[in-house]
Amino acid sequence: MKDEAKTITLDDLAVGDRYLSREYPLDTAQIKNFARDFDPQPFHLDEAAAARSFFGGLAASGWHTAAMTMRLMVESVPFADGLIGAGVEISWPRPTRPGDVLHVESTIVDITPSKSRPDRGIVTLKTDTFNQNGDPVQKLVSKLLVFRRGAG
Amino acid sequence: MKDEAKTITLDDLAVGDRYLSREYPLDTAQIKNFARDFDPQPFHLDEAAAARSFFGGLAASGWHTAAMTMRLMVESVPFADGLIGAGVEISWPRPTRPGDVLHVESTIVDITPSKSRPDRGIVTLKTDTFNQNGDPVQKLVSKLLVFRRGAG
Repeated sequence: MKDEAKTITLDDLAVGDRYLSREYPLDTAQIKNFARDFDPQPFHLDEAAAARSFFGGLAASGWHTAAMTMRLMVESVPFADGLIGAGVEISWPRPTRPGDVLHVESTIVDITPSKSRPDRGIVTLKTDTFNQNGDPVQKLVSKLLVFRRGAG
Repeated sequence: MKDEAKTITLDDLAVGDRYLSREYPLDTAQIKNFARDFDPQPFHLDEAAAARSFFGGLAASGWHTAAMTMRLMVESVPFADGLIGAGVEISWPRPTRPGDVLHVESTIVDITPSKSRPDRGIVTLKTDTFNQNGDPVQKLVSKLLVFRRGAG
């Protein structure tokens, strides 16, 4: 099942390594479908109610933005054993809107080998999600469990 | 569009206020559907690959756990103007599995009125997601924008 293109282990990583995703276009139906399942609030479901809300118009759930970001991270960050998150911090500086085209840029900001388990470490990855205007819609910092070569 | 049952504003909140959700049953098809869309990694999509992975068996995406948690928060936290997140911290102490029945417990841990905008404040809400054994599968701390009465 391992993607042959994904061969990068903890041994290969360095602080400053960067990964750029493809673009992900988002439409109104996707926003409403996600909201219906997971975040059924008026400003994610109904244009008129959204116009009267804090958001001033239909906005994607922040959790939808997070989920789309993960899709783009899975495609663009080529760790051999996958992306296994221990914890994250997220902020949403502005809404994601219908018609937005998202992409994500990830940068390794820290690598801490495990003291107790020499086959692994924690990689801190900073991932910003941008819309088509270059404005950030999400800022994510992830602590990822990454294995050494042959350990996964 | 405002739910008549949701009438709680910043004026009504106190540190220590708690909210308990209903139960949310999760099956294999839901786990694979979410993963196919947003987190297409072998340990979320394929039982055999998952058995050989770090997870030792099929596990839900952490972002799926987060999304289900949001669904339960929307239903159980009755803020008049909705749940508007500025930022969050999440950890996933153990995997969410097929057959799990989740519920969430939310507690207000801080209330900070805005100095610059007297109609609003930031409420820090700690939300733990538990499986049917009472074990936490996600720990979430959210900074939520909450309005005073009549301001939303």
